[in-house]
Amino acid sequence: MGSPERIREVARRVARFAGEGHQLVVVPSAMAGETNRLLALAREIHPEPTARELDVIASTGEQVSIGLLALALQQLGVRARSYTGWQVPILTDASFGKARILAIEERNIREDLEAGFVVIVAGFQGIDDDRNITTLGRGGSDTTGVALAAALKADECQIYTDVDGVYTADPRIVPDARRLDTITFEEMLEAASLGSKVLQIRSVEFAGKYQVKMRVLSSFTDVSSTDMGTLITFEEDENMEQAIISNVAHNRDEAKITVLGVPDRPGIAFSILGPIAEANIDVDMIIQNASTEGMTDFSFTVHRNEYQRAMKILESKVKSQINAKGVVGDDRIAKVSIVGIGMRTHAGIAAKMFEALAKEGINIQMISTSEIKTSVVVDEKYMELAVRVLHRVFELEKPPIQEKMKP
Amino acid sequence: MGSPERIREVARRVARFAGEGHQLVVVPSAMAGETNRLLALAREIHPEPTARELDVIASTGEQVSIGLLALALQQLGVRARSYTGWQVPILTDASFGKARILAIEERNIREDLEAGFVVIVAGFQGIDDDRNITTLGRGGSDTTGVALAAALKADECQIYTDVDGVYTADPRIVPDARRLDTITFEEMLEAASLGSKVLQIRSVEFAGKYQVKMRVLSSFTDVSSTDMGTLITFEEDENMEQAIISNVAHNRDEAKITVLGVPDRPGIAFSILGPIAEANIDVDMIIQNASTEGMTDFSFTVHRNEYQRAMKILESKVKSQINAKGVVGDDRIAKVSIVGIGMRTHAGIAAKMFEALAKEGINIQMISTSEIKTSVVVDEKYMELAVRVLHRVFELEKPPIQEKMKP
Repeated sequence: MGSPERIREVARRVARFAGEGHQLVVVPSAMAGETNRLLALAREIHPEPTARELDVIASTGEQVSIGLLALALQQLGVRARSYTGWQVPILTDASFGKARILAIEERNIREDLEAGFVVIVAGFQGIDDDRNITTLGRGGSDTTGVALAAALKADECQIYTDVDGVYTADPRIVPDARRLDTITFEEMLEAASLGSKVLQIRSVEFAGKYQVKMRVLSSFTDVSSTDMGTLITFEEDENMEQAIISNVAHNRDEAKITVLGVPDRPGIAFSILGPIAEANIDVDMIIQNASTEGMTDFSFTVHRNEYQRAMKILESKVKSQINAKGVVGDDRIAKVSIVGIGMRTHAGIAAKMFEALAKEGINIQMISTSEIKTSVVVDEKYMELAVRVLHRVFELEKPPIQEKMKP
Repeated sequence: MGSPERIREVARRVARFAGEGHQLVVVPSAMAGETNRLLALAREIHPEPTARELDVIASTGEQVSIGLLALALQQLGVRARSYTGWQVPILTDASFGKARILAIEERNIREDLEAGFVVIVAGFQGIDDDRNITTLGRGGSDTTGVALAAALKADECQIYTDVDGVYTADPRIVPDARRLDTITFEEMLEAASLGSKVLQIRSVEFAGKYQVKMRVLSSFTDVSSTDMGTLITFEEDENMEQAIISNVAHNRDEAKITVLGVPDRPGIAFSILGPIAEANIDVDMIIQNASTEGMTDFSFTVHRNEYQRAMKILESKVKSQINAKGVVGDDRIAKVSIVGIGMRTHAGIAAKMFEALAKEGINIQMISTSEIKTSVVVDEKYMELAVRVLHRVFELEKPPIQEKMKP
């Protein structure tokens, strides 16, 4: 919600749904820029603010939004009532700044819904066992929405974002990228973890765990629009003609590090990654080459922001300890991935990907696969090209057959 | 607390007290302008915002402040923990926007104090029985401070304001006005209700009810200052040489209304003031002249903002009903008052006041007295002159004798 005018638009949309007889729980985010403003204020006071107090401050952004949205609905004649996280309450663990929802006491909300209220719940926040305010971390409002949908056994959890759905690739890179009517939960989870910014991965995980139907919609389309965005579905079987590949994902948030000439013996991976984990640095891809003459190279990727810190740890603590030949790194890489549950049942998909990239002269630096995705690391400068090539080769611009046959 | 720099200054002051071994509970207000910004935002969404949602929004100002002050103290190496109103909890009635504190559960705060924490509590806010967020109205942070001091049986409740204490008169009007070292609770209560802006009357009432020692100090003096401001005391007997008059108060917030030629019969006051009360207009002074030939004039004052509305009610509803001759009003008046517990035991104080005003040719339009104050209504243009004359006649620029004898 960007501004008072945007809040009024959200209210009109909610009012329309309410007028159609739906029981609605709405989870607004903070107003645009508000969370950043609050965090900057905190950092102005304390360069490394303590997490508990930071959450006390940051949670006010959503608290203002619920009050304003309730007022906007009341202005339209809709009965509405706001709830902060602690008023619901939404119970979380005590991990300030990245808390996980443990339970939602939904009784009061249910009573309000039965009484005809639209219920507005502050996203991104909860309380721990000691009544401390917690926040769920960035994108936490989506997670709150999914968790509430699960607790209330809602028909659907609609996520309004700045895009109008999930696409076969980023339309800024692939002009003929196609919006998907549906995507399976597993594909969405992979896409989110591979760089799709549409949904926060934790909200998708939550939806998966509790089988919540999510729908991604644009908050910028006309209020009266009947556009249905992209549904994230659990019913794979209904889509017999599901495309093999659902989408091409990309990100350039990672950096690659290789430890050269490592003795190939048990425990070597832990010797390298243990100190990295201790420093709270998340590792994504991990690759160990087959050894030659008892020596191997060990590569992994970290977030680009952690690249310098990870290099330092390896150079100062790890290298001499494991007697490695050297440590090299590269923070100008990109990860490009194809995602699709069809990969489970169709052979040769990865090979087709590698062939397409090779034809364009794009060198593959690392490969990582799972049951429904294949990712490659390439030089950053080839990223857009790789995405376009893969989108074309897998014909993602064309709808799957059963969709084509719709009137 | 105006800005990050001001918050750091408050933190330095608190850190100094904590360093001296005091157990401290601090109640910060919202940052300057923040409450007004939030209320304006709400009114932009809804011209007549509902009180419950307005409190949800308005209470975030103080919530941000407690987090920031806790961070500022932690930055100085002081252990500090923040509490919102509901975290304490501070229990109030359900009068949104002007709630009254009913009870404070102080156990957690006491435990934190014993454990060596500085405790920071959000002012201005609480929760009602149904866990709704309430606010106490303007100046509510002072009331929160006093209520906490009462609940914790604190030695003293220090109120930091933009002035450095209570004066014998407004120094902008009387250049040789003197700051009082002490003022009795009753005098302070009168002064606050008569126009002194130093303390909100509700916080003074609360202090009186629970015998909380309050001290008014400037938040703008140097952090290391040993200035002790003005103590509001309950120990009248210790001040044997208490001045007869403590201070001269004034305000120009009121307007005068007179209903002319009213039949002097039982129930006439209610006939006039009933409709005014129904319209939620507060009445201050009320004067009914002795009747001549069964007719009287009935005068009262209301807040200047309510003047037009009150006149309209009288003209349209009341005048013909009670068969009055007319309704006249004046919103260019001022109320000037002398306040002092010495008036209880000294005769002729009011007469001395009237004489002094008469000598300057200032006509008195209305008079109202209580045990420890005498107020007069005069033409607004004489207000400053009246204040100066009274300050001089009662020799308020001179300290009382026992204070003079101090080294």
